Amino acid sequence: MIELARVEFRVHWAERAPERFLGRALNAWLYGEVARCDQRAADELHDAPGPRPFSAALVGEHDDLRLVLAGGPRVAPFLSDVADRTVRSGRILLDGHWLLVEGVAEAKTDTFADLLRRHLMRADRATPVRVDFLTPTAFHSRGRTMPLPIPDLVFGSLLERWRAFGGHDLGEAAFDVVRDCAAIRRVRIRSLSVRMEGRFTAFIGSAEFTLVNPPPIYNGLLGALAAFAEYAGVGQKTAMGFGCVRAAPLRPTRPADRQEPPDQEG
Amino acid sequence: MIELARVEFRVHWAERAPERFLGRALNAWLYGEVARCDQRAADELHDAPGPRPFSAALVGEHDDLRLVLAGGPRVAPFLSDVADRTVRSGRILLDGHWLLVEGVAEAKTDTFADLLRRHLMRADRATPVRVDFLTPTAFHSRGRTMPLPIPDLVFGSLLERWRAFGGHDLGEAAFDVVRDCAAIRRVRIRSLSVRMEGRFTAFIGSAEFTLVNPPPIYNGLLGALAAFAEYAGVGQKTAMGFGCVRAAPLRPTRPADRQEPPDQEG
Repeated sequence: MIELARVEFRVHWAERAPERFLGRALNAWLYGEVARCDQRAADELHDAPGPRPFSAALVGEHDDLRLVLAGGPRVAPFLSDVADRTVRSGRILLDGHWLLVEGVAEAKTDTFADLLRRHLMRADRATPVRVDFLTPTAFHSRGRTMPLPIPDLVFGSLLERWRAFGGHDLGEAAFDVVRDCAAIRRVRIRSLSVRMEGRFTAFIGSAEFTLVNPPPIYNGLLGALAAFAEYAGVGQKTAMGFGCVRAAPLRPTRPADRQEPPDQEG
Repeated sequence: MIELARVEFRVHWAERAPERFLGRALNAWLYGEVARCDQRAADELHDAPGPRPFSAALVGEHDDLRLVLAGGPRVAPFLSDVADRTVRSGRILLDGHWLLVEGVAEAKTDTFADLLRRHLMRADRATPVRVDFLTPTAFHSRGRTMPLPIPDLVFGSLLERWRAFGGHDLGEAAFDVVRDCAAIRRVRIRSLSVRMEGRFTAFIGSAEFTLVNPPPIYNGLLGALAAFAEYAGVGQKTAMGFGCVRAAPLRPTRPADRQEPPDQEG
């Protein structure tokens, strides 16, 4: 069974690129497409509580604009049909603008078991990961929007989504590992103010994360979650254009890269 | 009495700029200078627990390099003498490199009472602030280095330092306000890897912070703390070149800028 799927379309605007953020239009279009496959599945999708089990986003700009559709078990089985129909029709109407679809640039599928096999079971050292936040990303934290890639929020929210999507049980200890061991190695981000029922501060950019002294069984946890993030999206409003990422494990940390213990101030 | 002081010197390297991070050398030089004013004060300064009550940093580069010295009540009274002597001598030896001192670019002093009068007592609306992190900045959080300007860490650490420096009591509620109301409006940062007894990930860049619905008496809290930050520095290792900032209040938030409540995902 297809549990996780992601399709990237090469697209361009028929006329000038619209200025408005089109997350909501994209969301409505994708619900419509799923409904054409299976009205009941679309209704259930719409009414289910919790984070949306899919990601729909416009990434890049001008000559390198892409439409990304991705999702977990409740959406992935429909994406192949949606992709076929979208390529055949050749265009999508979003908020009064035609988006022309040139073709599929990339399509991939996965299962939770394969993510575990590839990332968690093979890691004999803590595996750092790189996450490129391609569209505005934000987390909801203590009543406010947090437009920063705080490791707890990035990977904690992915763990919750992994569970909500029906992924293999990673254990409550996985949350402890993220909270106690996840750290930032590198980061470069900037915020954007997105208009969407009021202004919404979010960030784009990239970051590298690693685990500092995790229990060895979780060495590959960030690698598995980063691979999952390409299907699930990260943070708030993934179904409305937010939190679309590219993510990949990096080579394991050499001992010399270890984070030093914080020393006394002089 | 001078409680808070900051001096910026125009400086340049006699030869090629050294590649090494000179935080430790700068720290040793400043202790020596304070000792020439008052050996006992220097000893007490060195032996006191907690965050160092001063900031010493090299900011900028090439034609616009500056040496910044700043501090609270235990250091501020000596800075005027240190500045005179430094300008007269015209040079500082740091880790085997001569730093030539061209003159004082800016000097200012303040008292905690004045910060409260200017920022906290006059604010009838929540005052946002802009903080430019001029040198590598990092926080120590739950056993790891956090190279992100998380509002809790930025302003929580300033509140602790305000108290450690002997500033007027802002009340325990000030910590609650930071935790519950401080938010990011804008941010642009990138990390640096600083070699200093191992590698140390820190960030530079800038951010705007605001308070969302604070108790009105604390409307100006971020403004007062931002002004204080120019004297105290922000985060870890301020005495060794880290966490030197420029910070200023911005115009109060217009109602239209208010952060919207997080809405349902679609």
